[in-house]
This record gives sequence, C-alpha cells and structure tokens, in this order.
Amino acid sequence: MRRIRLTVSYDGTDFHGWQVQPDRITIQSEMQRVFSEIEGAPVRVDASGRTDAGVHAVAQVAAVTMSNPIPCVNLRKAANRLLPASIRVMDAAEAAPDFHPRFQAVAKTYEYRMFRGETCPPFLRNYVCHWPRLLNEDVMVALAPALEGVHDFTAFAASDDSDGMTKSGFPKSKVRRIFSSNMWQENELLLYRVRGSGFLKHMVRNIAGVLIEAGKGNIDRAALEQRLRTGNAIPAGPTAPPQGLFLLSVEYAADPHPPGGADEPENTCNALE
Amino acid sequence: MRRIRLTVSYDGTDFHGWQVQPDRITIQSEMQRVFSEIEGAPVRVDASGRTDAGVHAVAQVAAVTMSNPIPCVNLRKAANRLLPASIRVMDAAEAAPDFHPRFQAVAKTYEYRMFRGETCPPFLRNYVCHWPRLLNEDVMVALAPALEGVHDFTAFAASDDSDGMTKSGFPKSKVRRIFSSNMWQENELLLYRVRGSGFLKHMVRNIAGVLIEAGKGNIDRAALEQRLRTGNAIPAGPTAPPQGLFLLSVEYAADPHPPGGADEPENTCNALE
Repeated sequence: MRRIRLTVSYDGTDFHGWQVQPDRITIQSEMQRVFSEIEGAPVRVDASGRTDAGVHAVAQVAAVTMSNPIPCVNLRKAANRLLPASIRVMDAAEAAPDFHPRFQAVAKTYEYRMFRGETCPPFLRNYVCHWPRLLNEDVMVALAPALEGVHDFTAFAASDDSDGMTKSGFPKSKVRRIFSSNMWQENELLLYRVRGSGFLKHMVRNIAGVLIEAGKGNIDRAALEQRLRTGNAIPAGPTAPPQGLFLLSVEYAADPHPPGGADEPENTCNALE
Repeated sequence: MRRIRLTVSYDGTDFHGWQVQPDRITIQSEMQRVFSEIEGAPVRVDASGRTDAGVHAVAQVAAVTMSNPIPCVNLRKAANRLLPASIRVMDAAEAAPDFHPRFQAVAKTYEYRMFRGETCPPFLRNYVCHWPRLLNEDVMVALAPALEGVHDFTAFAASDDSDGMTKSGFPKSKVRRIFSSNMWQENELLLYRVRGSGFLKHMVRNIAGVLIEAGKGNIDRAALEQRLRTGNAIPAGPTAPPQGLFLLSVEYAADPHPPGGADEPENTCNALE
C-alpha cells in the first residue's frame, strides 16, 4: 500500500465543510468518492483538519492510502478530471507510510479577509466578510500581534465546545502557540493572517470577531489579554462569518522550511480547525 | 421623469447573459424586476450592449427612467438589497433625459483572461479560460497590436451574423476602430485588453480565438491582416469561451476623460457586445 500526500485547494462556498456528513456534499465526501473510484475500492481521505461550511483552502493537506500503482502525476490528473472544478488537487506526492496530515502538522496559516468598501464587488462576494460599517482599523492593526505567543484559547473556542473532552473524558488542552498574528490594509481589503501550532474549532473566526469588536471600541488590549489567561471562558466576541476565511498552508517538520527556531515546532494532536 | 445612469458590476456565471429571454434568468431581467419593484410599475433597463452567458462586467453602464423621487444614493442601496449578490449597482447618478448607454457610448474596454498553469485554482474557475497547452506567447503578445486602427471586422463577427442587417434590410457596417489592443503575461495569467469604438457580437472572443491560433502556429501576421480587409469573411478562428471575458468600462463623450485625440471619439450605433 502507498501513502500519498495531497495538496488540495477548494472553494468552500458550495460545500458543507470538509468533514463527511450524512446526505450532504462535503469536500471530504467528494474526495473519497473520487479516490475510491480510482482505487476501485472504498478509501478514506484524511486532512490536516476540518474546515467549516463556506471556508476555503488555498492549500489544505490531505492523505490517502491506496494500492493502485498509478504514478502521482497521473493520479492528480485523474482526480481533477473526476472532481468538481471547485476542488482541485494541486499536488500529489509519495509520503511516508505513517504520514498523517493532522497529527504531524506543526503549523498552519489562515487568512481572514474583510471588504471595507460600501458595495462589495460581485467577484468577492463569496471570498470576503463584507463589513462596510465604521471600524477603527488602526486599533485592530495594533492589537493583532497581542495574540502571538503561548496562550490558553478557551475564550476563543467554539461555543459548542466540541474540542472539550478526550475520548477518555479528560478536558483537552486549549493552549496553542501563535507564531505570528498580523492585520493590514490593502486598498479596500482588511486582511488578518495568523500562523500557529494549531487552532481550535472556530478559533480564527473568533479572533477575527474580537478584532472587529476592538475596531468598534467594545474591547481593548487589557480585555483581550484577560481573555488569553488560562481558564478564562468569557466569550471573546462574535464568530465572524465563514466566507472570509482561507486556510493558506499547513507545515510539517520534514518540509524544507519548518516553522520557527529552536523552541518551535510543537506538535499538536487536536488541531480541529 | 428622471433618467438615471447606473454603473453595474456582475458575475455572469449564473446568468443567461444580459438580455431578457423568456423563462431564463438574465442580468437585465433581474435589474428590471428590482427597479420595477422600486418604481411600483414596470420599467425598462437599457445597457451599453449585451453580454453573453458567462461573460462578466466590472463596470457595465445601464440606464433607467423612473418617476420615483428617491435620491440616487438610496436608490443604489435599495437596488442592492433586492438584487442577488452576483449583481451590484456600484453607482447611480442623474443623467440627461436623452442619455442612452448604448447609442452614446464612444468607447468600451474588454479584458480576456487566460490561465496558463496546468491546474486551474478553484477560485479562478469561472473567471478565466483555462488553457494549459503549449502556446507561443511571444508571438501572441507581438501580434495583438495588429488589431489596432480602423478595420472591417466581418471575419470576427458571430457566425449567426445577428449584426448582419438593419431593420430596413441594409447590411450593417462591420467597420470598427480599435484604439488599443495589448496582450501581456502576469505570472500564470495571459491577459488581453482591447479598447475600441464598439464591438460586434462575439468579436472580442473571436479575437482571443485568433490570438490563440497564432500562439499554436496556425495563423501568422499576414493571415491576420488579410482577415482585417474589407469583405473578408473567412472565419478568423474559434470563438474563445465566455468565462474569460470581462467588460471593464464604457466611456461617454461627456465623461471627464473621453477617449483619444481629435480624430476620436467616434459614435457607434450598433455596438452589440
């Protein structure tokens, strides 16, 4: 059997997220349908983590185990012929037999995109959060790096707390390391990019939500830092809508440019988003 | 009654082109539905020209006659609340009572976008012609300006020849002036931009098709120039697919920056695309 690493780009607009769900079209269900067809038997496609409905990926990393000896370049082409054009396998490569895109990920980078103009161009409608109302962008830009470092992100977890317990009933750690956290403006776009060891479900959208609250003057640096202290579960702010969120990349220790210096990388076993 | 000039941006993917058709959703049908609802009576929305199914507009110009005294800024907002997000009124402004976006247009600019990489990113799938096969791009870039000047574009007209006859049965002129015609590369995109006095139905897609033929080595400068001579009706090449085509802008003599010098502008009464 071969283990194959896949780099997958998708427009999440028309899918109910990554993960297989009964009676719903998801990115994973499309991937498994197509790779099972190529294999001639059911196969499972794992990813570095779930993405929610409407969330996009520039380079999600996935993996599949197959016995079909088709060369990787032909596998990529065959998959792209069978997949909808909204999902593309950008790369396929042989991987170590134990390669797991989720458990071995050492860093992920997300971008959250907001459009600040009054009228959102139709070409951006599925790829930005349209926020034409007044925000103090200078405050948001100045506050974004405050997320960097090792913090307990309990206050930024999903309200349904699906990250909450291990299978054996212990509470899972919500401590994550954020390598970089920056916001900047590009014409009418307000962009936020965050690179971290792993992310809780809804964490990036909740960070975007709290930065928006800061831009509205509803939360300041002290209040943000309070929410980054261990055990603080005060919801940080609203969850920003999914269509502005892109998973840009996933990094592995064996990659040419693993993240950070000697104190990094750090393995994460429950990077759910 | 007021005449209102509308600047409209649309993603043509999900529409059967601009023009109203029975039992089909078109951009014009959506615009007329919404402006009729605001007016409280049926209104007609005219545009600078039709665009085909799948063709996009960054800034189509349209016009509507209404008696509703709603200020233009509120009209724009009301229309955008009622329109699908794939059609946006970017601007609404009072116009002269006789303003007609088609008959008074003095120049239009189109862009045709090709993606040359092997795998088309999902985010571009509706906005480029994906052409991964070998092309001599240097030949195409060098040939594009040969379209500039005043030519008879009979060989670049739609094969159904719907531009062919006036209502009184005389053949319509297929002479058009092209102010600029340029192709260039930007990373994996091959872009063609053309600005002219007016365009026949399918003309820009047929120009893109002949430039592709040139890139494949099937047509050279002499053959292109032959097809620009009056009366030549040899089809120049295949019609390139619609999703790569964008109407970028439409210009009017009264605008701040009308086209060209003393020998321009030139009015066109049958700019059909």
